[in-house]
Amino acid sequence: MPASPIRRLVPFAEAAKQNGTTVFHLNIGQPDIATAPAFWEGVASHKDKVLPYSHSAGLVQYRQAYADQLNRKGYGLTAEDVLISIGGSEALVMTMMACFDSGDEVLIPEPFYANYNGFAAMGGVLVRPFTTTIEEQFALPELDAVEAAIGPRTKALMICNPNNPTGTLYSKSELEALAEICLRHDLFLIADEVYREFVYDGREHFSILGLNGLEQHAVVVESTSKIYSACGARIGALITKNTELMATALKYAQARLSPPTLEQMGAMSALLHTGSSYFDEVRAEYVSRRNLMVQALNAMPGVTCPLPGGAFYAVARLPIADSDDFCHWMLEHHRHDGATIMMAPATGFYATPRLGSDEVRLAYVLEKANLTRAMECLATGLVAYNS
Amino acid sequence: MPASPIRRLVPFAEAAKQNGTTVFHLNIGQPDIATAPAFWEGVASHKDKVLPYSHSAGLVQYRQAYADQLNRKGYGLTAEDVLISIGGSEALVMTMMACFDSGDEVLIPEPFYANYNGFAAMGGVLVRPFTTTIEEQFALPELDAVEAAIGPRTKALMICNPNNPTGTLYSKSELEALAEICLRHDLFLIADEVYREFVYDGREHFSILGLNGLEQHAVVVESTSKIYSACGARIGALITKNTELMATALKYAQARLSPPTLEQMGAMSALLHTGSSYFDEVRAEYVSRRNLMVQALNAMPGVTCPLPGGAFYAVARLPIADSDDFCHWMLEHHRHDGATIMMAPATGFYATPRLGSDEVRLAYVLEKANLTRAMECLATGLVAYNS
Repeated sequence: MPASPIRRLVPFAEAAKQNGTTVFHLNIGQPDIATAPAFWEGVASHKDKVLPYSHSAGLVQYRQAYADQLNRKGYGLTAEDVLISIGGSEALVMTMMACFDSGDEVLIPEPFYANYNGFAAMGGVLVRPFTTTIEEQFALPELDAVEAAIGPRTKALMICNPNNPTGTLYSKSELEALAEICLRHDLFLIADEVYREFVYDGREHFSILGLNGLEQHAVVVESTSKIYSACGARIGALITKNTELMATALKYAQARLSPPTLEQMGAMSALLHTGSSYFDEVRAEYVSRRNLMVQALNAMPGVTCPLPGGAFYAVARLPIADSDDFCHWMLEHHRHDGATIMMAPATGFYATPRLGSDEVRLAYVLEKANLTRAMECLATGLVAYNS
Repeated sequence: MPASPIRRLVPFAEAAKQNGTTVFHLNIGQPDIATAPAFWEGVASHKDKVLPYSHSAGLVQYRQAYADQLNRKGYGLTAEDVLISIGGSEALVMTMMACFDSGDEVLIPEPFYANYNGFAAMGGVLVRPFTTTIEEQFALPELDAVEAAIGPRTKALMICNPNNPTGTLYSKSELEALAEICLRHDLFLIADEVYREFVYDGREHFSILGLNGLEQHAVVVESTSKIYSACGARIGALITKNTELMATALKYAQARLSPPTLEQMGAMSALLHTGSSYFDEVRAEYVSRRNLMVQALNAMPGVTCPLPGGAFYAVARLPIADSDDFCHWMLEHHRHDGATIMMAPATGFYATPRLGSDEVRLAYVLEKANLTRAMECLATGLVAYNS
């Protein structure tokens, strides 16, 4: 089991705080955006004196409401196609357990969310990466390159859309091309769509649930925690029309009895009663943070950062040779205006050794005043580190 | 991955309910006891507008309070010895992942909690049972028999105390004997102590945390959800002084980011502010339910049920040959006063084939009026089934 590379730096951040230093956390997707108000109303609506288990697949009403909402896009889901999980994380673990036998392989474009390594390890699944590059703005490579990576033990292709860590938003035609490969080679297409509400510049998120002919191959992971800025709620969902796969996932769900009931009440209320104006505001806020951060980054000598189309992350290339060392050094040695910043070295997001050693992932989850200070801190840090 | 045998009967119970039949659920440990009031106060005390992740190992304050409370018994734990898990279930999964390599074996007295099979399967761990019998009131067998079952791949001995499904409470001297075996063969002793507060007749629960010399071998699983009758809260704990083991468990905890934050607030408040009078009342209620049920069972012709010393389960031998068939038949065909009962066939709690085919597990989690009706239903059902 690999250690989470994002969290490996935690002790150094804790030490900095104990010395009175402000640490700007650009390393983790914990936004300061207020949780959708309807979430709290849902929690408060629980009046029973007993807090019972829910159905292992989640509260029946909630699953129905979930399917109904997704069906506005014409997916034709039933409540049985939706399994409420303990955060997107558990849905990913269940996917790894249910889609694969031990020793099977999953193809993933790198850089990818580092915890995929841990989830794959839990299921005995081997990760085979294919590389996307900052020069190409992390677009998917030519499909020949993807197809060449498929071996006899390959069981699935997995993407994150919009992407963590790069923020890349894949288009419908890119997804259709991947789907064609999956159908040709009988692979599952697993899509981590936890950031689906966070897409910018007038573009729309296209879910693989909308791909015709892919019904038996499509597996989608969602996260209420992310959508409604309630990270601590640990409510997510696994969605598939493949009933055999769902039956296997349900066995894992039954073994752990139930997702958190009270937070499902909150999540159901958030789903039913959060209007589009909430998301308009949240998106506008993220866009202005993104623009501020990406502009500041590209203004630093030797720094490159493509403009992300979604999620709340960006990967930047820095004029450094060892991002692990640099992120560690910033926490231990660099102070600007009483503060330092914590970033995620990009090495942890690549499976291929040495890739990402001059890149970091930055989450634009802080309000603009703090983000401005964080960028100043990074700019001065780069100068000091390189002199 | 095996299906949960307790939940396999769920569709038949659902069908009965849809036909207007009352179903008394003696099949699952979902008590109707009110959640400790302090839990709700803790939930309400969350005033921040954002519901954030907690530390992956749980809220720091909560872990400290947890250790402090256990230390009243002189265990000498630090907050770092306590990892807050998503229910006792997740602590068991983490234990299976952290204590074993794929292909290793765990020794467990049977009958045992059926979901141990699923957790073991997730970790690639093989379950080797040693049998306890209803004739011996499910006491542990002679230690020679336990020791004889140890093989080269055996890495741990695992018990549930008080026991689910039998309600057996193991004494200090029994635990000392097991500890001696573990030390002699360098095995972990894993104790599922989720029912530790539910012990009756003036006896006290003795935790393996109190065994001298076992510090590096003892792994304890607890469940706030069980202790404070908040099953839906999904808050549990993994406790060990073995720092290497805890470091491995923490990696799994980090991959799934955080246990539910809001329900940790409730659990911490329940821990800090629930007085002994709450438990006195709960225990008195369970004792009177237990006595009612066990007396009613032993009054039925051909039925044997030892008096459980703890938890809220009992295993009864019935005058039947196929408990799966009988439990299914009761749900589908037997009605008494507009009601039927759902029980757990004991076959699911034994790893040895065919054992438990004349036994069922009954949870005395219903108020006495309903329990009385349930026992009448069982008595008439046995007569009808056998005629």
